Amino acid sequence: MSTAPLPATAVIREVGLRDGLQSIQTVLPTERKREWIRDAFAAGQREIEVGSFVPARLLPQLADTADVLAFAKTLPGLKVSVLVPNLRGALHALQAGADLMILPLSASHAHSLANLRKTPDEVVQEMRKIRAARDAAGSQTLIEGGVGTAFGCTLQGEVSHDEVLRLMQALLDAGADRVSLADTVGYADPASVSRLFERALRIAGDRFCCGHFHDTRGLALANVYAALQLGVSRFDASLAGIGGCPHAPGASGNAATEDLAFMLQSCGVRTGVDIEALLALRHRVAAWLEGEATHGALWRAGLPRTFNMATTA
Amino acid sequence: MSTAPLPATAVIREVGLRDGLQSIQTVLPTERKREWIRDAFAAGQREIEVGSFVPARLLPQLADTADVLAFAKTLPGLKVSVLVPNLRGALHALQAGADLMILPLSASHAHSLANLRKTPDEVVQEMRKIRAARDAAGSQTLIEGGVGTAFGCTLQGEVSHDEVLRLMQALLDAGADRVSLADTVGYADPASVSRLFERALRIAGDRFCCGHFHDTRGLALANVYAALQLGVSRFDASLAGIGGCPHAPGASGNAATEDLAFMLQSCGVRTGVDIEALLALRHRVAAWLEGEATHGALWRAGLPRTFNMATTA
Repeated sequence: MSTAPLPATAVIREVGLRDGLQSIQTVLPTERKREWIRDAFAAGQREIEVGSFVPARLLPQLADTADVLAFAKTLPGLKVSVLVPNLRGALHALQAGADLMILPLSASHAHSLANLRKTPDEVVQEMRKIRAARDAAGSQTLIEGGVGTAFGCTLQGEVSHDEVLRLMQALLDAGADRVSLADTVGYADPASVSRLFERALRIAGDRFCCGHFHDTRGLALANVYAALQLGVSRFDASLAGIGGCPHAPGASGNAATEDLAFMLQSCGVRTGVDIEALLALRHRVAAWLEGEATHGALWRAGLPRTFNMATTA
Repeated sequence: MSTAPLPATAVIREVGLRDGLQSIQTVLPTERKREWIRDAFAAGQREIEVGSFVPARLLPQLADTADVLAFAKTLPGLKVSVLVPNLRGALHALQAGADLMILPLSASHAHSLANLRKTPDEVVQEMRKIRAARDAAGSQTLIEGGVGTAFGCTLQGEVSHDEVLRLMQALLDAGADRVSLADTVGYADPASVSRLFERALRIAGDRFCCGHFHDTRGLALANVYAALQLGVSRFDASLAGIGGCPHAPGASGNAATEDLAFMLQSCGVRTGVDIEALLALRHRVAAWLEGEATHGALWRAGLPRTFNMATTA
């Protein structure tokens, strides 16, 4: 009845500054973003997605991505990632010297057309151009292909695992250094995560790098646990669980960074994160975002009395 | 890397009327409790903990337990359970013809003394008396020994797995028909659930009947999933996640019934519960409890578009 041992360590990639902030009304000043990144780094976070190279008129919340990225690059050892919707965005990321750029592809054709005005296969062509541009520039920036709506879509409904995996393979073939899967709308459950991620790992092996689970229906942490059992050891999360979906008011965004860190470390999976420091930062970020919905449970209850004992055991 | 198949079916035992209502200020009128039980039954729930036979001065919220139990017994096929803190409560439960009475034992000595004014081993003696009374009455009422603070305690801190299992065995030896484990304060994580429940199942086999996880730190559903992977197929839950802990204001109570039903059915584990009907009931219960904190995620977001497809697959 036992399951395989969990990974000894895992990385929580902070996406609150991108996936979180893009989904809410408040435009956080650049100075606040710098403070967030500085203190997340001080709390032990070593991978942060700082923004998105999209036109400022589409996402004014992320208009300062180049400035924020430049600041983040000054923190030694921080891996700075950025989302790029297309070649144009990728050229900005290359110029800015991002450590990683993530090209999102929506496996739902309906969602892909609505969101990116491209079919999924047209996004694969974009990956090909981005890889060529990266190689031509002699850049070290890694390229991740992130397959979204991997568990279904609010527009299209069902998205088949076969199609998700076909597109993941196509991204690898088109030059992605690595790939990830995202439950963009909170449709995943732990059993479906086990099934899809097991197949993804068989296809991509070590190039499968990350799980991204929205907590829209409360299952994000259970889904992380299911992926963790397969050896997946990088997960996206938003501090205070910010983000969400315009179609589900009040619904939460990503897994809350602080709750995820708590679960991982309680399970004996080291994250390098100082959870008390993270909770202090969460307190400030939530105050900056007054009026916006925040999520998560740990901040209310605090760490268990036994927590230190558990992690040093 | 695969894990064992999940159980084909699972039971969600509703404990909102006991564990939920006892932890909040509002005293729900008996008529409302009847309506809740009637509609939970109509939504497919077949096991409900209706109250607690404790002195009314201690828990005025549950003073009408005998009346509520009598009503619940009129619903054909509903298994009606009740909490009993001691022999006196058990005699009430026997007289009322409860299908099941649950004697809680706190594995934390500090919590046991503070809560029940007995040591855990004195509670084991109470189990012996309850079993004798049940047998003397020729009653069909089942007796469950519920070991609480099984993952640690806010008063005492650490509670060893060895001590939890020693007390579980002692309850069985003293005449409990079955036993369960509870994370009373939200200290469990899925890895610790796997470790403790695997040992509990080795000791109690089919007599191990239920997992009870508080969602205080957001891990209740991940913990359920870990137990489910070991074949555990009965879980306590509260509609709207009501309940909580006086020491952690705003902290949630049990796993939310509706979110748990969603996770189980999404995972292909049948519960017999009509989730839409449950969400409609949740809406009413939350209105009755206006001003009290309610929890859960599904009620905001609604079921996925793909949900029916997933469950009929």
